[in-house]
Parts: sequence; structure tokens; C-alpha cells
Amino acid sequence: MPEVIFFEPKGPFPLNELLKDLSDRKEKIKISNIKTLDKATKNDITFFNSVDYKEHAKNTSAAACLTTSNLEQYIPKKCIKIIVKNVLLSAAQISHKFHPQAHLDYPDKSLADFHKISSKYDSVTFGKNIFIGNNVKIGSKSSLGSNVIIEHDVHLGSNCLIGSNVTIRNSLIGNEVVIQDGCKIGVKGFGFIPSKEKNFRFPHIGSVILNDNVELGANCTIDRGSIGDTIIGKNTFLDNQVHVAHNVKIGKNCMIAGQVGFAGSTTIGDNVSIGGQAGISGHLKIGNNVKIGGGSGVVKNIPDNTTVMGYPAVPLREFLKK
Amino acid sequence: MPEVIFFEPKGPFPLNELLKDLSDRKEKIKISNIKTLDKATKNDITFFNSVDYKEHAKNTSAAACLTTSNLEQYIPKKCIKIIVKNVLLSAAQISHKFHPQAHLDYPDKSLADFHKISSKYDSVTFGKNIFIGNNVKIGSKSSLGSNVIIEHDVHLGSNCLIGSNVTIRNSLIGNEVVIQDGCKIGVKGFGFIPSKEKNFRFPHIGSVILNDNVELGANCTIDRGSIGDTIIGKNTFLDNQVHVAHNVKIGKNCMIAGQVGFAGSTTIGDNVSIGGQAGISGHLKIGNNVKIGGGSGVVKNIPDNTTVMGYPAVPLREFLKK
Amino acid sequence: MPEVIFFEPKGPFPLNELLKDLSDRKEKIKISNIKTLDKATKNDITFFNSVDYKEHAKNTSAAACLTTSNLEQYIPKKCIKIIVKNVLLSAAQISHKFHPQAHLDYPDKSLADFHKISSKYDSVTFGKNIFIGNNVKIGSKSSLGSNVIIEHDVHLGSNCLIGSNVTIRNSLIGNEVVIQDGCKIGVKGFGFIPSKEKNFRFPHIGSVILNDNVELGANCTIDRGSIGDTIIGKNTFLDNQVHVAHNVKIGKNCMIAGQVGFAGSTTIGDNVSIGGQAGISGHLKIGNNVKIGGGSGVVKNIPDNTTVMGYPAVPLREFLKK
Repeated sequence: MPEVIFFEPKGPFPLNELLKDLSDRKEKIKISNIKTLDKATKNDITFFNSVDYKEHAKNTSAAACLTTSNLEQYIPKKCIKIIVKNVLLSAAQISHKFHPQAHLDYPDKSLADFHKISSKYDSVTFGKNIFIGNNVKIGSKSSLGSNVIIEHDVHLGSNCLIGSNVTIRNSLIGNEVVIQDGCKIGVKGFGFIPSKEKNFRFPHIGSVILNDNVELGANCTIDRGSIGDTIIGKNTFLDNQVHVAHNVKIGKNCMIAGQVGFAGSTTIGDNVSIGGQAGISGHLKIGNNVKIGGGSGVVKNIPDNTTVMGYPAVPLREFLKK
Repeated sequence: MPEVIFFEPKGPFPLNELLKDLSDRKEKIKISNIKTLDKATKNDITFFNSVDYKEHAKNTSAAACLTTSNLEQYIPKKCIKIIVKNVLLSAAQISHKFHPQAHLDYPDKSLADFHKISSKYDSVTFGKNIFIGNNVKIGSKSSLGSNVIIEHDVHLGSNCLIGSNVTIRNSLIGNEVVIQDGCKIGVKGFGFIPSKEKNFRFPHIGSVILNDNVELGANCTIDRGSIGDTIIGKNTFLDNQVHVAHNVKIGKNCMIAGQVGFAGSTTIGDNVSIGGQAGISGHLKIGNNVKIGGGSGVVKNIPDNTTVMGYPAVPLREFLKK
Repeated sequence: MPEVIFFEPKGPFPLNELLKDLSDRKEKIKISNIKTLDKATKNDITFFNSVDYKEHAKNTSAAACLTTSNLEQYIPKKCIKIIVKNVLLSAAQISHKFHPQAHLDYPDKSLADFHKISSKYDSVTFGKNIFIGNNVKIGSKSSLGSNVIIEHDVHLGSNCLIGSNVTIRNSLIGNEVVIQDGCKIGVKGFGFIPSKEKNFRFPHIGSVILNDNVELGANCTIDRGSIGDTIIGKNTFLDNQVHVAHNVKIGKNCMIAGQVGFAGSTTIGDNVSIGGQAGISGHLKIGNNVKIGGGSGVVKNIPDNTTVMGYPAVPLREFLKK
């Protein structure tokens, strides 16, 4: 997939200016962006909120890191530690400074009627009433239904088939991808810091990446990543009405039946099959070749080559004993 | 929220004419409308079908009340009691006389292309291919995506953000409300009297009320009330693919994760959080500060400050013991 | 319902040509199509993969049948038996020869703006931005919302009410049918032969048949049949966000609450009621007058007149004991 930036960051900002109201650190080094522990470069700020990510923390290249006093021990010496009360809220506030438009899905003002721009897309078949944003790329022999909206900078590969009433934003889509009617791809995820008067939304600057041969059934919703991407691997098929939350990563050759739901930031291995209406909690790691029975509720990590079922999901043998 | 009548009642009708084929009561007093026990005025007829509502029955101001012989004892003396076999069917039939168009979602014939009327909405940002009905109000700085339909008399506050492929009817929407792509707001609910040859649909004359700062994720469906409204409180956020049935009332500051479903007429308190794919049965009362685990099936009322989980949902401690 | 062929088969093909790479049978008889055991005529090829269908196998009229060595005993003498390793894959490959366009939802190139063709539909009420394909029939007094797409050859009866943002293809729809906003009807189902590099999609040449008085709530998805049809019986009502997979058959007078999901090829009797979020596995037979509790997971056949609940669903008495 190409590297496309859907949300160009503001800045750079001096660190002390970014931290105004958050910390009394006075360093003025220029910070270019906020990224996850593993993606941050020496010009970025990052955040570290859970011991689960301590290996990433130890190896981060970030210039500075928002964290808590009991986690700062894992952060490299050369990384400036910024101790805050609420790491996620502080990260959201800083992300908002870099990306003041990414916490909501503002409509794309560059959308144009495809009649006016179809000459740019030579071998593409267009239905009716299609709107395309600036810099959208569509590969040869792809085909779009009607009432489709593809917002700026989306990349769509060749031989793709997009149904009707589909909206796509902030997404990079491979070749031979099938998206059936009514799917909403790249919408802002359900990420916010609760607050009594008014929740504080986490900017969603990530993308949705759909690799070659992916199929999405009708009325699926795929949220884009907040920081980092939502990814579906090659040749993975989703049935109708599946919900994929922000930052979920699904491997290749998976089969996901109807009405399955994935909560945020969960990682699914390759060759995984999931029965209808199963739910997978957030921040889990599901191994390769796992089979999850229909209607199951998965609340724990699952190792490779395991079959689970039930609510909460347990290995099949255990489920059958009960 | 302003008082807006989406379905102007026919009538008034003399009581004996309304009751033709239902009862041999001969009173000719004029009846203006059919309303719930608590909302009915001295010019209205009401209905009373379940002892759960006896407190409302005792205090009703209605001129007349459809009920059964074992419930009539709770109804005030001055209220004319009309004993019928099937209270809900009779109520539906009478409601149908007042509102012959409310049992289905007839398309709004007043819809106009926004190009022709956008001058009425000065500071509103419009996407493409938007249709707006008569008397729609949209507050300043609100923004609409593309392929959006807003039917007659809908009120939308200021600073709202409406996604693409959204339809809104019979709804009153506050300020800073976010509705993501593909939501269907104000549709007729699943209310009917079953009958072998042809079900009898209950008219849906209520509205959907979304208070300030509400957020709805992609592809949510919010049914309007049948008699009475469907209400979502301030600063309550719903994730993708949530289903809210008719007459549900959700409090403020709630967090409702993806694919949750609410059956009809249930009331949810303030500060409630509900995990993904949980289901809440109809006609329940869920207290304030309740936490409901993902995938749970709630079939009983839940008192304030309780955490529940499981199917059927039980207090967390009990669930963990099992 | 009329007999309408949405996918005209290529061919006929000589049997030995159809079987190239699959079998060394040399018969050259002309084969017109691939059909199920019970629908195949003496000019068709069929397939037999599971002993559950042995009664259909014994009575098939097909000229030839794809099957395995341990099932061939059930097939009539005069039917040519073709022993293959993977019956479904071979059937998919042969189906693909007859129907090279049915394994995906290619957009209908015959779609026309309703303005240009509305004179053909005299007493039909049209909303805005509607596209209709060739040979679409719409009965008198039917009414369509806005942003509706009805693809070629669809039949829609009289007095139907179609909401907005609805797409309909490959469907035969009776009278007085109600389809609420956002439904996707007749989409290709989730049928494919998994394969590491690239799954092989089963052609979906069947239809969706909605009988008189059916109602579908908002954002439902109804897949068309692969071989054979997906059918919903008279006066059956579905609530919002219900998912009906390919080849499901639902009887008459059923009530299906919100977010229920049906996996492929399951048969539901008459007068069945199903609570919200219940899931029904594939290839099951649910009897008449069955009641299935909300949130249940049904994994076995259910006899007539039974109430079940739970996950997996068991008779109510048993569920309550637990």
C-alpha cells in the first residue's frame, strides 16, 4: 500500500507549547506529530498508558512520552518523560492540536460529480450519482454502483467492485476488493474521553487498509484507526453487517460471518474463522488458525490453533463438558 | 426542545363514533386525540393494559380509557371506562382513525433539492444530492454530508454534523449532535397487533428526540415513538449499528458500544455504559450509573449503581461465581 | 410469483466439456444448467454433498450428479454419477461456466433515471433520485422514497411502500410489502469455497422472494439464493437490522425482532416468533409455532410448537432449571 497522509499535521510545535496546561516541562524542541510507541520517530511525541505495551515502550524512538509515574521506568533514558494524570486525555488533547479536524467526519468539500471527472478514470465503470473527492485513485477495470461517495485521497485498486450506497473515506484499498451495498468505510471510531458535560473526542488520524481480494458484505461498518490503522488482510471475507472498530487488525484468509463485532485495537491472526454474531472484546490478540463459534463472546487472548465457543468463550472441549 | 406536531390528528370525533364496532358506549363527547395515561388531557382518550402502569392510571386526566374489566378499578371515577377484549388492538384502531398516515413511512412529498432552498440555510454546509422537506429548521454552522434526506418539520440544532446516506424524519435534534454515515432516524417502529391474515400496524405518531452533544455511530437505526417519544439524553454516545426501538428513553452521559439493541419502551438512566452486542429487553427500567457487560442479555430491571453481565444478565459477582 | 430468470444461463454445454479438469467421463449429452436435486430436470446437472438430502437425491430427475463415492448409492440409476473430491467446489466451478457474472453484484448498466421512465409507472409515487433498470415491474399505488435503486427485472407488487436509500436486485416482491429505509435486498450471499490464495465464489443465481404483506425494518440485509431462492412468507414482519443469509426460507405470519441473524439455507416454519439478537445457525429446520427467546443461539432443529431459549438454545423448561 502507498503511504498516504489523510490528515496533514499542523505544526511542528515546541514541546513546551504543546504541553501548556499539562505539564511544567520547559523543553522547546520541535515536535512534528503524535504517534504510537512503535511508530514514533525522534521528532514525535508518544504516549504509554498500559504495562501491556512495555516492550514497545522500551524500544520507542520518540522524543517525548506522556505516561504515569509508575510506568516511566520502562521508557528509554533519552526520551523525555511527561507525567500526567490521564494519559489518554492528554494524548487526545495533544493530538487535537496537530489534527483539529480529525475528531469528526467533516464532509469532503472537494467532492465532484463523476460526470465532470470521469475522463480521469478511463477504464472504470460508474453507476449513477457518484461523487469523488480530490486525488482519488481508482485502478483499471474497477466498477462502482450508484449513490457512491469516495472522499479525497482514497486509493482503490484495479478490478474492484463497489456496491451502491457505499461511502469510503480515509482508506487505502487493494486490488480485486469487493465491497457490497451500504458499507461505510473509514468512519471515525468510537474513541473519546468521557466527561460529564461533554465527552472529548480522540482525533482519528489513521486509515482503513483493505488488502487484495478482501470482501465486505452489505451494511458493514469499518472505522478508521485513531492513531495507527484498521487493517484487513488479503483474501479475508466478511459477511453482512459486520462491525470493525478502530485499530482492529485482521489477518489474511479469515472468514467472518454475519453480524460479528470487533471492539477496538484487537488483533486477529491468519486463517481465523468466526461464526455469526460472535463478539470480540477490545485489545485482544487472537492467534492464527483459531475458530470461534457463532454467538461466542471472546474476552481473553486466544493462542494459535484453538477452537473456542461460549460466553465467555472457552476451548470447545470445556464448552461441551458444561 | 420545541413542541412540534409531525402528525396533525384528524377529528375531533364524538366518542361513540370512535368506539363504533368496539363498544356500545353512547357518550358523544368530543375526543381530540389518543395519548398515553400520563399525557392525555380531558379531551383525549387513553388506554391502560398492564398493572405496571397503575400509578399513571390513577392520575390520568383522560376523558375516556380503553381497558379490561380487571384493570378498570384503577381508573379515576370521572374517566369513562371502555372495556374491550384486546386493549392494544382497540387503541391501535382508534389511533388509526386520528392518524391514518402514521402507521407507515409514507415518503415526504414536500422534499426539495437543496439547491433550490439552500438560501434559507445561510451558514449551513451542504454536501451533494440533499433533499429537504417543508419547514425543516437547521441551526447555524451545521454541516451535512451527501445523499442526505431530511423530511418535513425536522429541527436540527446548530453545530451539528450529519454524515452521508442519512435519513431523518419526525425528529427534533439539539445542538452539536453528530450522526455518522448511514443512520436512519425516526423510522416507524416494530409495533403491530399480530393477526393471521394481516397484522394491524400501530400508528407511530411520536418523535425521536436527540439532545445536545449526542453522537450516533454509522448505520444506527432509531425508531420514533408510537405514542410518546424515543429520547436520547445529552452527551450520550452510541457506537455503530446500534438499534433503538420505539419509545426507548436513554439518559445523559451514557456510552453504548457497537451493535447493542434496545427493545421497545425501555428506560435507561444517566451515566450508563453498555458493552458491545448487549441486548436490553422491552419495558425495563435500568437505573443510573449501571454498567452492562458486552454481549449481556438484560431481561429484568436493574437498580442504580449496579454492574451486570451474562445471559440472562446478573450482578457481576454472581456471574463470576458461575 | 412469476417465473423470472435474473441470470440467463450460457450453454447448453456438452457434459464432457463441462467436466473438463474435473472428471474423465466422456458423455457428450447437452446440459442446460446446474440446479438443486429437487429442481433439476433431465437436461440439468445437479450436486449431492450431504446425506441429509438423500431423499431428494433418490428422486432427482437430473441427467448427471456431482457427488462422492460414499453417497452415489442414493442416486437413481439413470443419472450419471460424477465422483469428485470436493463436491461444492466442482459445483461452483460448473455453475460459474453457466453464470460467469453471478458470483458478484456487477452494477446494472440498464439503470435509468426515473424522470425518463416514470411514464411507464402510472400510479406509482416516486421520491427523488431514483434509478430503475430494464423490465422492472411496479404495481399500482406503490410508493418509493428517495435514493432508491431497483435493478433490472425486479417485480414489485401493488400498494408496496419502499423507503429511502434502499437497493433491490434479483427480487420478486408481492403486494403490500413494506421495506424500510436502508435495506439491501437481493445481494450476493456469503457463499464461497475457501482457498489460501483466493477464495472461489459460488455463483448466486437465485432470487429473493418477498410474499404479500411482508415488512422489513430499517437496514435489513437479505441475500439472494445461490442455487434456489431466499423466501419470506406472507405477513411475516422483520424488525430493524435483521440479516437473512442466502437460501433461507421463512414461513408466514412470523415476527422477527431486531438484529436477529439467519445463517444460510435454514428453513423457518409458520407463526414463528424470534426475540431480538437471536442467531439461527445454517441448514436447520425450525418448525411451526416455535418461539425463540431473545439473544438465543439456535444450533439444532426445533420441532413444532416448542419454546426455546439460551445459548445453545434449549426448551424453556430446561433453560429455567439451569
